[in-house]
Amino acid sequence: MNTLIKDVLAVLPDGSTKKTNIAIENDKISAVGDVPADFTADNIIDGKNKLAVPGFVNTHTHVSMTLLRSYADDMKLMDWLENKIWPIEAKMKKDDIYWGAMLGIAEMIKTGTTTFADMYGDMEKVAEAVEETGIRAILSRGMIGVAPNGQDALQENCTLFEEYNNAADGRITVMFGPHAPYTCPPKFLKQVMEKAQKYNAEIHIHLAETKGEVDDCIKQYGMTPMALMEDVGIFDLGVLAAHCVHLTDEDIAIMKKHNVRVAHNPGSNLKLASGIAPVGKLLEAGVCVGLGTDGTSSNNNLDMLEEINLAALIHKVQRLDPLMVPAAEALKMGTAYGAKAVGLSDIGELKSGMKADITLVNMQGTQWTPCYDAVSLLVYSANASMVDTVLVNGKILLEKGKLTTIDEEKVIFEVNKSAKKLTGRALLNE
Amino acid sequence: MNTLIKDVLAVLPDGSTKKTNIAIENDKISAVGDVPADFTADNIIDGKNKLAVPGFVNTHTHVSMTLLRSYADDMKLMDWLENKIWPIEAKMKKDDIYWGAMLGIAEMIKTGTTTFADMYGDMEKVAEAVEETGIRAILSRGMIGVAPNGQDALQENCTLFEEYNNAADGRITVMFGPHAPYTCPPKFLKQVMEKAQKYNAEIHIHLAETKGEVDDCIKQYGMTPMALMEDVGIFDLGVLAAHCVHLTDEDIAIMKKHNVRVAHNPGSNLKLASGIAPVGKLLEAGVCVGLGTDGTSSNNNLDMLEEINLAALIHKVQRLDPLMVPAAEALKMGTAYGAKAVGLSDIGELKSGMKADITLVNMQGTQWTPCYDAVSLLVYSANASMVDTVLVNGKILLEKGKLTTIDEEKVIFEVNKSAKKLTGRALLNE
Repeated sequence: MNTLIKDVLAVLPDGSTKKTNIAIENDKISAVGDVPADFTADNIIDGKNKLAVPGFVNTHTHVSMTLLRSYADDMKLMDWLENKIWPIEAKMKKDDIYWGAMLGIAEMIKTGTTTFADMYGDMEKVAEAVEETGIRAILSRGMIGVAPNGQDALQENCTLFEEYNNAADGRITVMFGPHAPYTCPPKFLKQVMEKAQKYNAEIHIHLAETKGEVDDCIKQYGMTPMALMEDVGIFDLGVLAAHCVHLTDEDIAIMKKHNVRVAHNPGSNLKLASGIAPVGKLLEAGVCVGLGTDGTSSNNNLDMLEEINLAALIHKVQRLDPLMVPAAEALKMGTAYGAKAVGLSDIGELKSGMKADITLVNMQGTQWTPCYDAVSLLVYSANASMVDTVLVNGKILLEKGKLTTIDEEKVIFEVNKSAKKLTGRALLNE
Repeated sequence: MNTLIKDVLAVLPDGSTKKTNIAIENDKISAVGDVPADFTADNIIDGKNKLAVPGFVNTHTHVSMTLLRSYADDMKLMDWLENKIWPIEAKMKKDDIYWGAMLGIAEMIKTGTTTFADMYGDMEKVAEAVEETGIRAILSRGMIGVAPNGQDALQENCTLFEEYNNAADGRITVMFGPHAPYTCPPKFLKQVMEKAQKYNAEIHIHLAETKGEVDDCIKQYGMTPMALMEDVGIFDLGVLAAHCVHLTDEDIAIMKKHNVRVAHNPGSNLKLASGIAPVGKLLEAGVCVGLGTDGTSSNNNLDMLEEINLAALIHKVQRLDPLMVPAAEALKMGTAYGAKAVGLSDIGELKSGMKADITLVNMQGTQWTPCYDAVSLLVYSANASMVDTVLVNGKILLEKGKLTTIDEEKVIFEVNKSAKKLTGRALLNE
């Protein structure tokens, strides 16, 4: 199946834009620019007045938590977890996990995201949803080492790897998901590492999210979480580290040395009042920083364009420097850097040889007028409802704003049913 | 003309929501709740699956600068002003001002804003645009006291007041717009005050936007900008103060004492790296804080829902307190507090007797699922493209997302023509 995106304004790997054509052969981009003479398109997408960007890469979420969106907001972290989130999570069944994942994936495709990295329980249900919907995902079984089911969770992560790594035409990658140093002591982490090494799998973990966590770690181990992780040796496996808000300069040096890749979640870090990650310093040190939404309970959406916008805004004021994280850099954090962060070398840029994971944004209307700089407008002015078309592996998942692989009405119906059953509360838009 | 909004989920003045009806007689809300027995509707709007909020109040912008959107971003302030913004502004003609205003007003109505406070030159062209489009506005002639045209500008502000205050069925209020203490020395401010007093008009001014401005003021006058303004006596007239980023506790006490109302512009303050205003402290002190977008050159849109979202996020992290500025408080900043900030007592809440300035947001789709808390979802999950219907003074200005008083295509065509003429640069979406 060959597809041609014709006369589109494309964001090139260097951040510049060019009116051009994108030729797609099966699941790959075969050309950006001059279309090969022997290329015949089975399908032509009119790119007029559209901006083509690499599909957004959401480097950190808990997609099934989309079920809990707006259930509890504006609360203190432990009050929120202990009295609201955990009691409901304890009641979730496999079907709830599946429909939560379907809702989150529907939202991500509609808002231009083509890849997401997830950590949760019952991940085979998330894998099923990924397989069915056509999105790309990096899945890990969230493991709490100190919980009674720690060993079962580790075994489930192994099973997930065996059954789903490289499945769905290569769209699924499986990582190991020890939750965090404060829930997974070194002994458990070593067990995780042993299994991950056996499968040659990487690690997805929360690190240094709150000041309290860092203080506790220093009290308990005499080291920051980052130094503790280096000591345990987990960075040798390849690590995607979520949050990384509270870091010393030594922490940043450790991260650079071991190529720790960051999933920066600006929306969640602001909403939970965790802090502002030192992204300026990380980028200057050459650390790879991608962007994530975190779960919808702490965001409350999976809209990567909002995270890109926040990344471009908050680090300017943190350093009182308007040149920090310009629009094109923020967009790279949401695309090319995100791809590196989740360990994929064949997505994240629009160029020949890459997988055809592409998002087209409608550039018409007041927020795009006048249009001197399309990347600036995408990052600072547009919103995700302007996403028009989304392709993953060369297959169209969104066409003129409509999902092609998901029955959105059915998903919303099933999610509402699950949500009411779990919480016993009525919904306001039914 | 009587309108009934039927079966709508309305945000009430206390921040709670209720499924109800809103009855509108001519330009006023006559009932929220039980519709009077003798009420006959000429027009019924189906409120099913819609959230009714008071129309957003944009307390600070320079609407005609919408012409310069995306012309120059991610630059240092003086480099940006001296080399990009001012040279183009110097070339702007009355027609450019008009079309820039039309574009900005079109965008504001489409994104749910029903009132805006503006400061710029050639304001009679902005007033014309307000009159034609049906939006509500608080207009002031921006005056640079140290500029050669300072006295002319003051005269223009007087003329603007005489011709347009309370015009357009009362939709236009005129204030006086001395730009800032660093461009308007005390002597000039006294001249402005004398004229404003004569007309019983209020003042719209930029105050304490950057640290440099505050430091310079202390160096020159031995006082902060806030203390200097108290000394000059300008607060006796009623003041809408834009930005107020860098404040001492004494400044906040002065503001409370004189009921200085704040136009807080989170997006602009972040993008220009001005800083984060101490909104937590201001609200705790009982100072009225509304929200504004500032001009699109420093934003880059006029989307008040984004400002409401930012206001709910950035003050949590500034104080490391997740309870700061909860969703309902942020929404009030964008509505009821904004109305007080611009000096209007008959807008900003959905209750009997208020002007019928109402925004209806579509609550269907993934970002609204599940819906336990509509205010949380509006503030943390929705985007402005979900605005469906907008009324000002009881008249529908937006219906199912379509503008009723503005030819959007023509506006975009004329703006693009103006933009190309002014900058000599091609546009990317034509």
